[in-house]
Amino acid sequence: MAKPSATFYFRIRLYRDHEIVLGPGRIALLEAIDETGSISAAARHLGMSYRRAWSLVNSTNQLLKKPVVRSAEGGAQGGGSSLTPIGKEAIKLYRQAEAYAAYAAQEPLKQLQALVRTESSQETTSN
Amino acid sequence: MAKPSATFYFRIRLYRDHEIVLGPGRIALLEAIDETGSISAAARHLGMSYRRAWSLVNSTNQLLKKPVVRSAEGGAQGGGSSLTPIGKEAIKLYRQAEAYAAYAAQEPLKQLQALVRTESSQETTSN
Repeated sequence: MAKPSATFYFRIRLYRDHEIVLGPGRIALLEAIDETGSISAAARHLGMSYRRAWSLVNSTNQLLKKPVVRSAEGGAQGGGSSLTPIGKEAIKLYRQAEAYAAYAAQEPLKQLQALVRTESSQETTSN
Repeated sequence: MAKPSATFYFRIRLYRDHEIVLGPGRIALLEAIDETGSISAAARHLGMSYRRAWSLVNSTNQLLKKPVVRSAEGGAQGGGSSLTPIGKEAIKLYRQAEAYAAYAAQEPLKQLQALVRTESSQETTSN
C-alpha cells in the first residue's frame, strides 16, 4: 500500500449576504459551459441535473451586476449558451485569487503538512 | 433595509488521503480547548456534542505525528485537557496560512466583489 500523503485544499466562496454568489461549483459549471457551449452538456459533464445547473446559472446571473451566461434564441436548451464578458471576467478573477492564495500560503501549509503522520496509524491510540 | 453586501470567505482543509486532518471546524475546536481547558467546555462553547468533539480530537491526535491535545489523569472529562506544543503549532500555521492567503488574494477578490449587484434583484429577471 502506498504511504498516506498529506494534501491541502483551498475553497474560496463569494457571498452576497447569506447567498453564495460564486464558489468552486459555480465556477466549474461556468467553465464547463464555456467549453461545451451549452448548459445541458455542461450539466452532463459535471454529473449534475439540468434543472440544478440552470438554477445555479440563473441565480448567478441575478446576483452579479450583469448576467454571466447568455442563451441563444430557441430557449436555453435549444440554442446553446455562452459566457458573457462578465462571466469570463468572474472566472479569471476567481482562478487568480485561488492561485495567489495558494502561492502565498505555501510555506505555512508545507510546515503543516510536515506535521501529518504518513505511516499508517491504525495500530496506535492516544489518550 | 440595508444594501446587500458582498463578502468572501476562505476555507483551507488539510487532508491525509481522503481524511480531513485539519479544517476550520477542528481548528476552532482546538482553539476553544486552549481557551477553556476542557473538551466538554469547548464542545458546549461551539454547540457541539461532547461525543463529536472527542471524536474530532481523537482523530486529529492520530492523524498528526504527535497528539494535539493531552488530557490529564482522571479521564478526558475529569481532569481537563490542554494543547500540546504540536497542537499550538498546528493552529499557528493554519491561521498564518489563512492570513497570507487572504492578503495575497485581496486584489482579485476586491475586483470580484465589485461585480456583485448590491441593489435588490428581486424585480429583475434575466434570460
